[in-house]
Amino acid sequence: MRCVVTEGLLEKQVRHFEEELVALQGRLLEMGGLAEERVRAAVEGLVSRDPALIERALGGDEPINELHIEVDNRCFRLLALYQPMATDLRAIVAAVKINTDLERVGDLAVNIAEAATRYITHAPVKKLIDIPQMGAIAQSMLRDALDAFVRRDTALAHQVLNEDDQLDALKTKIFRELLTFMIEDPTTVEPALDLVLISRHLERIGDHATNIAEDVIFMVSALDVRHHASEPGGG
Amino acid sequence: MRCVVTEGLLEKQVRHFEEELVALQGRLLEMGGLAEERVRAAVEGLVSRDPALIERALGGDEPINELHIEVDNRCFRLLALYQPMATDLRAIVAAVKINTDLERVGDLAVNIAEAATRYITHAPVKKLIDIPQMGAIAQSMLRDALDAFVRRDTALAHQVLNEDDQLDALKTKIFRELLTFMIEDPTTVEPALDLVLISRHLERIGDHATNIAEDVIFMVSALDVRHHASEPGGG
Repeated sequence: MRCVVTEGLLEKQVRHFEEELVALQGRLLEMGGLAEERVRAAVEGLVSRDPALIERALGGDEPINELHIEVDNRCFRLLALYQPMATDLRAIVAAVKINTDLERVGDLAVNIAEAATRYITHAPVKKLIDIPQMGAIAQSMLRDALDAFVRRDTALAHQVLNEDDQLDALKTKIFRELLTFMIEDPTTVEPALDLVLISRHLERIGDHATNIAEDVIFMVSALDVRHHASEPGGG
Repeated sequence: MRCVVTEGLLEKQVRHFEEELVALQGRLLEMGGLAEERVRAAVEGLVSRDPALIERALGGDEPINELHIEVDNRCFRLLALYQPMATDLRAIVAAVKINTDLERVGDLAVNIAEAATRYITHAPVKKLIDIPQMGAIAQSMLRDALDAFVRRDTALAHQVLNEDDQLDALKTKIFRELLTFMIEDPTTVEPALDLVLISRHLERIGDHATNIAEDVIFMVSALDVRHHASEPGGG
């Protein structure tokens, strides 16, 4: 296809595209902030046994859901109107994927809050130290992954990938410890099981941050990733 | 942008695009088949306590991972070369998302197989009936969701969304039953916990099928979904 475009028009197109891309990134950061806030409320509510805090993580789906639809629409519009190529195209496709990841993080905060609601109806199984630490790591991974996306910073993205190992190690430690409690004292089975599930939800939040970090690396340096691909592909 | 295109060229473009789209769908079906096969091997291995079957779900990541990269590359190439609009654009973006979902289903099959490996080292907690049923539902949801994508069949996609409730009900039933076992007999704690985790993994496979079904509905009838959107969007 040969296209006839005047120079002025093209410049204007490029400027509009970049403005819209910045707006899109802003929406994703906003969504990430909301998701992170819900995770924090759920974990803090669990640790402090505060039903009001837990309630904050349970309710208020709408802002994230609305942003989810808005971001998807913005991505479709950018693809349809500007037909971006190379890094710009990969950035939009990354935004589509990141949008999905962030919505899931919001859902996982709800899952944590649901388990926390059950947990605080029982006597505490133990002093919670590793779970809030997992929460802190997962939140910081999420924040770093989104910063890496906006700044196109692959070093930061690689850092996120490394942090995931800490999360896995804590999950395994928590699992073993709670298993011992459950076997030794049947009254701990129910609440300990909820802590196991919460640690799995936090691990999955880390997985979503990892997905975002991998998308950033692909977006910035497509060739590195495609080196292992069976087909060269375009873009 | 005004574009000068000869009629013959355009027809050729359209034909090539459609050929490539069919090839892309074929790859997604292939990937879905592989993912489903791994889930089946993991669940059947668990039920029949057959380490060789479980092993089949554990190994052989490569075919799915290779398809994952290939599908992503095909999507990028279709977006970059043909700059599709409307339903075609939504189909490619849906393919990007479905690709991610299918890769995760493969990972979940591995998680099931890992738990099954631990489970069969213990005496059986109970006769497994609900878990293979969850496995069968999750597999059929996945197959239907992919068929709905290829045939652009929203009725079938809606059917997949309904099936998810069965999966949730079974998960809750299994959870309560296993909790009772664990509280009454500490020797069941470890294996029962693995069954709880397996039922959660199967539930998540259903979630991925649900995601695919939702993507199909959006792809075919964008307006229905966008009716609730804060912004009209393009495409």
